[in-house]
Amino acid sequence: MHTFEELQQGAIDAVDSRIYSKEPSILYEPIDYSLRQGGKRIRPLLTLIAAEMFGADMERAKPAAVAVEMLHNFTLLHDDIMDNSPLRRGKPTVFKKYGTNSAILSGDTMFAKAFTYLYECDKDKISELVEIMLQGSIEVCEGQAYDMEFETRDDVTIEQYLEMIRLKTGVLLSTALSLGAVVAGCGRDDLEKLKIFGQNIGIAFQIQDDIFDCWSDLEEFGKVTGTDIADNKKTFLYLKALEVAGEEQRKELLRLFSLRSFDRKEKEDSVKAIYESLEIRSYAKQLMNKHYETALKALEEIDVVKSRKDNLYLFAKKLITRNK
Amino acid sequence: MHTFEELQQGAIDAVDSRIYSKEPSILYEPIDYSLRQGGKRIRPLLTLIAAEMFGADMERAKPAAVAVEMLHNFTLLHDDIMDNSPLRRGKPTVFKKYGTNSAILSGDTMFAKAFTYLYECDKDKISELVEIMLQGSIEVCEGQAYDMEFETRDDVTIEQYLEMIRLKTGVLLSTALSLGAVVAGCGRDDLEKLKIFGQNIGIAFQIQDDIFDCWSDLEEFGKVTGTDIADNKKTFLYLKALEVAGEEQRKELLRLFSLRSFDRKEKEDSVKAIYESLEIRSYAKQLMNKHYETALKALEEIDVVKSRKDNLYLFAKKLITRNK
Repeated sequence: MHTFEELQQGAIDAVDSRIYSKEPSILYEPIDYSLRQGGKRIRPLLTLIAAEMFGADMERAKPAAVAVEMLHNFTLLHDDIMDNSPLRRGKPTVFKKYGTNSAILSGDTMFAKAFTYLYECDKDKISELVEIMLQGSIEVCEGQAYDMEFETRDDVTIEQYLEMIRLKTGVLLSTALSLGAVVAGCGRDDLEKLKIFGQNIGIAFQIQDDIFDCWSDLEEFGKVTGTDIADNKKTFLYLKALEVAGEEQRKELLRLFSLRSFDRKEKEDSVKAIYESLEIRSYAKQLMNKHYETALKALEEIDVVKSRKDNLYLFAKKLITRNK
Repeated sequence: MHTFEELQQGAIDAVDSRIYSKEPSILYEPIDYSLRQGGKRIRPLLTLIAAEMFGADMERAKPAAVAVEMLHNFTLLHDDIMDNSPLRRGKPTVFKKYGTNSAILSGDTMFAKAFTYLYECDKDKISELVEIMLQGSIEVCEGQAYDMEFETRDDVTIEQYLEMIRLKTGVLLSTALSLGAVVAGCGRDDLEKLKIFGQNIGIAFQIQDDIFDCWSDLEEFGKVTGTDIADNKKTFLYLKALEVAGEEQRKELLRLFSLRSFDRKEKEDSVKAIYESLEIRSYAKQLMNKHYETALKALEEIDVVKSRKDNLYLFAKKLITRNK
């Protein structure tokens, strides 16, 4: 078994050692650009951790790790178009750099290409691995669709928001883990528990991201912050604030989130002032911890000796204590 | 074995009998809209024809037929965004009706969903079927990328153009045939010949489409015509005209295809006048026939009794004599 740091390096190497450039360059250069931006390689790391947890050496799971990272980057390419995001990891997004058409088409190619890496895994596992990644992809799209739909709705509940982020963020973490586990021949019951772990860790991760979007600064976070407020996103912060606010603050919040033209900084400050007076950050951290605990409980129940779970416990802990 | 008409009906039924609507509707309504527009169902028909040619009843190949039609429609959704096409089969395109973001995301979902239908086929065939469709998808994207790249290049050769349409159009027909053949357990040699048939029929089909785009009218063709000229597309018509034109006409053609603002009708008439004086339509028909003959030769060589090939011969003949 490898240490956490070795697995981290393994995930980075697995992705970095591949060649992504070929002809036509109009198609493959954006793919190469996207995958060479670094990033935390969280998903391929999860694939490797899960594989070793169930007894396979990380080398066997590296193709699946590359698959899930490319799938993740495909979603970023298309999401950035839809969200009109200028920056990603502190650099111009693919659609800003290469144009919308390239970002659509290169994303499509990454989507297909991601699955082809799974064909380097054991022959008798391919069909199951592909199926897991297809199901994950569909659910991620559903999550993104709910996210879009919520923009024009004013009756979104906290429950619906959590289901949306489960699909949009949790499912891909759970997919990454499942791929590694299946490579290692993990049984059905443990696979289910691993999914619960992945999805809840994903929800916790997203709530934390919402907090960072509101309270970090660009330099530290590597992304433009305050975008959720500028885009009138119904995050947990907003929905919880609506729930606990008094009549006056509630009205003010609804007004701020219905503005079509505004001074960005001014709006951000007003919304944050309301959040702070209502201690919304504390509610968010509580909810994040709840999902974190659910994840840990599922991990505890997995039928594998405790020492084999250490890396996943460590992953969860690092995730929850990250500062960007 | 079924008659051609029964297989045609089978392809239509296979696609029409499925349910595409579900929640979130923002995601699935465009998918349903896209697949309910009818269309010629050429690709699923090819899947069924190939399956029966190699001895499987069409029922066994219907899931693969649905898969390839959904994959095809996914490419249409994204191509229509990239080409900014307002109409498809005489109706508003998905991105015009539902917006670009919906068309991107619904397309992505169709891409993933298409592959899931293959899981209804025989278990031991799934991995090969998925691989064929993945490879086909990547090549179709490459074809679209070359198409985009050619827009800004003025040194495209006829050979490069033919490779582009092989990828963009031929490969998906060949994929459709391969899926049906693999469902029926066809051998490797025959599969290769079937691919040659499919790709060459596809090239012939695309050259014909280029002719229609230039010389049909909207009502008959169901699409806005003259778009290739308006978009400065380097079709075979244009490339051949450049090759055979005298100095003056060549200059005029280059000038017309470098205009950024123009009266659409006027430009179309000028280009068509040049094409007609150079008998470009006749060159195009010759080239179309050449690829048609290559396709027929490959079909002839497939190791199956002649009577089993009748439907595919009929398909080829109908395709080449279509008027829209």
